[in-house]
Amino acid sequence: MVVAFLQLRAASKLSGRINASTMMLSRLLGFLVLASAIGLGSAGYRADSVAAAQSDSPTGAAADVLSRTNALPSWNDGPAKKELLYFLWRVTREGGPDFVPADARIAVFDNDGTLWSEQPMYVQAAFAIDRVKTLASQHPDWKNRQPFKGVLEDDMKAVAASGDRELLEVITATHAGITAQEFEHIVTDWIATARHPKTGRPYTDMVYQPMVELLQYLRANSFKTFIVTGGGVDFVRPWAENTYGIPPEQVVGSSGKTKFELRSGRPVLMRLPEVEFVDDKESKPTGIHRFIGRRPILAFGNSDGDLEMLQWTAGGTGARFIGLVHHTDPVREVAYDRRSPIGRLDTALDQATARGWTVVSMKDDWRTVFPR
Amino acid sequence: MVVAFLQLRAASKLSGRINASTMMLSRLLGFLVLASAIGLGSAGYRADSVAAAQSDSPTGAAADVLSRTNALPSWNDGPAKKELLYFLWRVTREGGPDFVPADARIAVFDNDGTLWSEQPMYVQAAFAIDRVKTLASQHPDWKNRQPFKGVLEDDMKAVAASGDRELLEVITATHAGITAQEFEHIVTDWIATARHPKTGRPYTDMVYQPMVELLQYLRANSFKTFIVTGGGVDFVRPWAENTYGIPPEQVVGSSGKTKFELRSGRPVLMRLPEVEFVDDKESKPTGIHRFIGRRPILAFGNSDGDLEMLQWTAGGTGARFIGLVHHTDPVREVAYDRRSPIGRLDTALDQATARGWTVVSMKDDWRTVFPR
Repeated sequence: MVVAFLQLRAASKLSGRINASTMMLSRLLGFLVLASAIGLGSAGYRADSVAAAQSDSPTGAAADVLSRTNALPSWNDGPAKKELLYFLWRVTREGGPDFVPADARIAVFDNDGTLWSEQPMYVQAAFAIDRVKTLASQHPDWKNRQPFKGVLEDDMKAVAASGDRELLEVITATHAGITAQEFEHIVTDWIATARHPKTGRPYTDMVYQPMVELLQYLRANSFKTFIVTGGGVDFVRPWAENTYGIPPEQVVGSSGKTKFELRSGRPVLMRLPEVEFVDDKESKPTGIHRFIGRRPILAFGNSDGDLEMLQWTAGGTGARFIGLVHHTDPVREVAYDRRSPIGRLDTALDQATARGWTVVSMKDDWRTVFPR
Repeated sequence: MVVAFLQLRAASKLSGRINASTMMLSRLLGFLVLASAIGLGSAGYRADSVAAAQSDSPTGAAADVLSRTNALPSWNDGPAKKELLYFLWRVTREGGPDFVPADARIAVFDNDGTLWSEQPMYVQAAFAIDRVKTLASQHPDWKNRQPFKGVLEDDMKAVAASGDRELLEVITATHAGITAQEFEHIVTDWIATARHPKTGRPYTDMVYQPMVELLQYLRANSFKTFIVTGGGVDFVRPWAENTYGIPPEQVVGSSGKTKFELRSGRPVLMRLPEVEFVDDKESKPTGIHRFIGRRPILAFGNSDGDLEMLQWTAGGTGARFIGLVHHTDPVREVAYDRRSPIGRLDTALDQATARGWTVVSMKDDWRTVFPR
């Protein structure tokens, strides 16, 4: 079986022109170069094995918390887990100097690469490709017209050679021109049957078990957990509740415009071929402000696209937890950071070091990567 | 004391040109005609008196529910209360044909005129006027420049004569050019001290006690309650939690754009003088879709601006409750509907009759209007 390994069209080329359509394109469809560069060898996505517990010499409250809890079982007892548990102990201890009332316990998580795998391509890109193939029989002209022709023939070089306007046609064809309800059904059906190209598992099994446990543990400590994703909000909402325990109203993401219409007296929301909001980079804090309306006290990301969200969260007063998932595990997942076109982690990694944010090493800090 | 009675610049004049800026202006600042027309006589806003319980001949489950509950004490035992309790009984009865799982119990409420008083003018308009007066000393030119001059001199005719561009200057001057955090503090301080021009009570005391009880009762029945307001989301959020029990992330509303900036390394969100979203009329369903991501099963409004939200909510499958607050009480509040420039209730009232929605008569259905 020939699997198309796709990757994001070099995001760096786009910096400087923060045009909504361009960003949306780069996010959703500018992924189209054959992906030898990421080094996705045969070792990727091997089954988890229980890693040796990492020993350390904990002291004080953090050690105490760590020794008394059986929370976060898929995390090794290393520094990242300690920092998380210590933070949670501080903000939930009534009467303590860092106590945060339950209703202000807002936690935000990037999705792609933070809660689930974003390699070898964004899952939403795989969705768009599948959708083109599904719709092809209704569009005979696509066989001879780029970029559809390239998508249908798995000729991603041809797709990548297309201009923004042509690529926008692919978004329009796959994401717009139908009602919001129809799109929700399409995503729900697709996510139930689509399989990850390397592991053959459903994409909803390609979530990071330690992060799912963290979400649960935060909620058990009265946190409200939000996704703040550059991906499409309507692509994530249909499965986020079952997969992460995060309801639709707690998903912030990129969106296209919709239009209210009455059709034979029945109200529908039509999905228009217009970008409304691209929730990436400096738009993540504005998205948080717009949708959530208060500053989180915990934020987790994995790439430079999350930097401003992490800065915004860190900039508040009181205790803060700022985390980065660092993809360091070429055996159980994929190792990538500064040079990866998908999920590039460069400036944010430097900032994390400089500011004492918690860098979670997938290889060292996670006992398990994916659910069993 | 001369009190400026202000009202919305005839909303009807604006229909047909649904331009975001124009709608925002009409919503926030196009309120500026002396308001003899609404008939705000000295009888308005008199203290509540316990109304005689309205008798009816209840049958079946609704009567049973009604007889067993002491919920909603500020509602008379009339048809509206019965319909509410019957709906709640249907959607919460496990195993029943209309049962709705807790996580799908989404309820949306308009704010102005539905949860609190919108007469003699939108509270946010009063805020803008006060803000102009507060800032005037920093802007000596305002004394001689419309529409600021008119606002400062309570000469609303002069203000009303200004063009959209001039009125937009007032929004900019009062709502933008500062950080999101600064604006939040300003609103918080203002709402704590400002007083309703007729009753002299804090605006947060001008909320409708029966609706506050309904919000509480819905939450006690595992509903998630949202505000979906044409007013500014950042104007409502600072006080909605204390006043209604609705946290910031459950307020959907109109917004201006914000911009993420680092100032000497500190992240801020600057409020820009640009309209981002006007959450009124056909934008209410799109706002619900964008912010909440699923269709409510209960919606409450009071004006034609809420019609599409009510239609959208009604259009889902399964049990639905669609309510309209009808301002019928000239003694305890204000009586207005089809001809009022603020909170005009005309088409939506006809629709309610035609479709069997619940029209709540403030005079007949509410035992108490305002909190004591």
